[in-house]
Amino acid sequence: MKPGAKAKTSTETVRVELGARSYPIIIGAGVLDDVGAHVRGTCGAARVAVVSNPTVGNLYMARVADSLRSAGCEVLTVEIPDGEEHKTLTSLGSIYDRVLAGGFERRSPLIALGGGVVGDVTGFAAATVLRGVPFMQVPTTLLAQVDSSVGGKTGINHPTGKNLIGAFYQPQLVLVDLDTLKSLPQRQYLSGLAEVIKYGAILDASLFTLLEQQMDRVLALDADVLQQVVRRCCELKAMVVQRDERESDYRAILNFGHTLGHAVESLTKYKRYSHGEAIAIGMAFAATLSVVRGYCDQEVSRRIIALLRRVGLPVELPAELLDEPLARAVAGDKKASSGKVKFVCLTDIGHTRFEELTSEDIADVAAQWCAGRL
Amino acid sequence: MKPGAKAKTSTETVRVELGARSYPIIIGAGVLDDVGAHVRGTCGAARVAVVSNPTVGNLYMARVADSLRSAGCEVLTVEIPDGEEHKTLTSLGSIYDRVLAGGFERRSPLIALGGGVVGDVTGFAAATVLRGVPFMQVPTTLLAQVDSSVGGKTGINHPTGKNLIGAFYQPQLVLVDLDTLKSLPQRQYLSGLAEVIKYGAILDASLFTLLEQQMDRVLALDADVLQQVVRRCCELKAMVVQRDERESDYRAILNFGHTLGHAVESLTKYKRYSHGEAIAIGMAFAATLSVVRGYCDQEVSRRIIALLRRVGLPVELPAELLDEPLARAVAGDKKASSGKVKFVCLTDIGHTRFEELTSEDIADVAAQWCAGRL
Repeated sequence: MKPGAKAKTSTETVRVELGARSYPIIIGAGVLDDVGAHVRGTCGAARVAVVSNPTVGNLYMARVADSLRSAGCEVLTVEIPDGEEHKTLTSLGSIYDRVLAGGFERRSPLIALGGGVVGDVTGFAAATVLRGVPFMQVPTTLLAQVDSSVGGKTGINHPTGKNLIGAFYQPQLVLVDLDTLKSLPQRQYLSGLAEVIKYGAILDASLFTLLEQQMDRVLALDADVLQQVVRRCCELKAMVVQRDERESDYRAILNFGHTLGHAVESLTKYKRYSHGEAIAIGMAFAATLSVVRGYCDQEVSRRIIALLRRVGLPVELPAELLDEPLARAVAGDKKASSGKVKFVCLTDIGHTRFEELTSEDIADVAAQWCAGRL
Repeated sequence: MKPGAKAKTSTETVRVELGARSYPIIIGAGVLDDVGAHVRGTCGAARVAVVSNPTVGNLYMARVADSLRSAGCEVLTVEIPDGEEHKTLTSLGSIYDRVLAGGFERRSPLIALGGGVVGDVTGFAAATVLRGVPFMQVPTTLLAQVDSSVGGKTGINHPTGKNLIGAFYQPQLVLVDLDTLKSLPQRQYLSGLAEVIKYGAILDASLFTLLEQQMDRVLALDADVLQQVVRRCCELKAMVVQRDERESDYRAILNFGHTLGHAVESLTKYKRYSHGEAIAIGMAFAATLSVVRGYCDQEVSRRIIALLRRVGLPVELPAELLDEPLARAVAGDKKASSGKVKFVCLTDIGHTRFEELTSEDIADVAAQWCAGRL
């Protein structure tokens, strides 16, 4: 179905309550056409910049720019290359160059139109250009809609690891158009489902059960189920961020599957696996480790691995990543603290506990897992 | 006199009160040897990185590193090139590379040992590496001691203008060793006096009078007068930052002389004038503009220009910067808002008012001033 062809259905709003930094997440089909009205209503700026990548830009930039121009905005468009490997200082520099040459002012908002890479890099640019300009997220991938666009984590990668450079910087608005998922390549959609499954696994057993029961409709992009699932994920993300905005402690539960996932991504140079695929492996591993260490029943890891498989996500660690490189990569993860890694384990579906593990502990369980002994 | 040869005299502390982000400025001669104890007392980290430049590093890095090691810290040293033209994304990237390869963790502090460039770039690195690590300032230039090390403005330059990329990020500690001023080249010391004179001009008539009366002793680095002057400037800076940390309005008074000063620096590619020299020109101009527009008596600009001249600072605009390029550079300054510039004017010594001026207004007065008609 061609983007934009569908009539608007009901729109729902989830609030992220962070005092002066509170903002709404507006979720619905077709809300892309309302970007202009929302931006004007939020910050009233005359000049805005929309950052996207060539793929998403081709599909949606004209519509978004039209909506902004209709609302009286002067629109500057910026494109950064597509893909995790371009979440770099170079892409960041290209946004700086474009908006600063374009006469940006402190109240001019930067709008991210795209997935996690566009959102993270654009958010970091917004946090730092002129020491901070308004920022808005228009996520067009499932992963960005349920996770990366909400909560204010922005940043870029570094050769030594993912997201090692960045800032906490909340958007003033997140606008989720569910219709954009129809243009999303299947592999990216399934990757986003890894984060959706994560929310159920760590925080909400009923969401997890819903996914087990309704996965056929989710995979078929059924509008009603999709809106219900995306809204629930945004509510859960908002709840976590409200409780611990800057990841002092609690927010780290969202790293479930990410310690190993980041290591896998880094060791395969962000080429072999998408983020969602890497954290699917990481979640399968974290669930297995939780069973091995006696924190939960085997049934928990069985259900998680089964649901990931049902979606078609990878749940096994490539043997060549084992031992040395894996241990080093895990230790290099930024959540490390004095040689120990704060590892998110499960005690049940929807329930977690933190464990301080050494990278050797993790590599050890990984070796057994990989050898099929777990 | 060789650095480190002098016995410690009395140390004074100025507090910057910003709630959870409050911190002390510790001022005295010889406090460089106490860096280790202060760092351990402030954040208790085992691993620290000290960023400096080759000039300052040669003079003081060994002493600072010794002090840190004596306090039980593991020390990583980083050097970035000297000079305003190196306040770039490249220098920033080199700090990222060094500390991330060095196994930095979230509680590992970054310490800036040097002048404004080192402080600003290091502070921005601290704000953004691992989304924020502790930051400490050990300013070794007068300009950094009285201005840039206090208040949390961090950042880098962009080809289109100065400080256009950055973050507000407060240090946890500022350690001002007045002895380091003895090793400061004369030209840099005099440049720092431009900011000292600024505090008197905009906020404190009695400081201004003290400077008029005691400038010989200030120029001779008299320890008592110097400590009195530096402490007073830090108190004034703290007062301004406490009232308006993120420059919503009031803090902009510190930009007195900076609108034109930044334009002059940018147009001369940061090579011809030091920052202090450029803002001396800017202050002479702003005082003159204040007289022209009838905000203050001619006596005000006469005293300011006389004091700047007494120090040997430039107070005239180079004719070749006039007209088009100047107007464009002024308009491109990040304080611009919808084509207008918030310009800091004087109503008396120690008293200011803001005026919204167009870049043409400013270029116009500049042209008359330059032609000797004012």
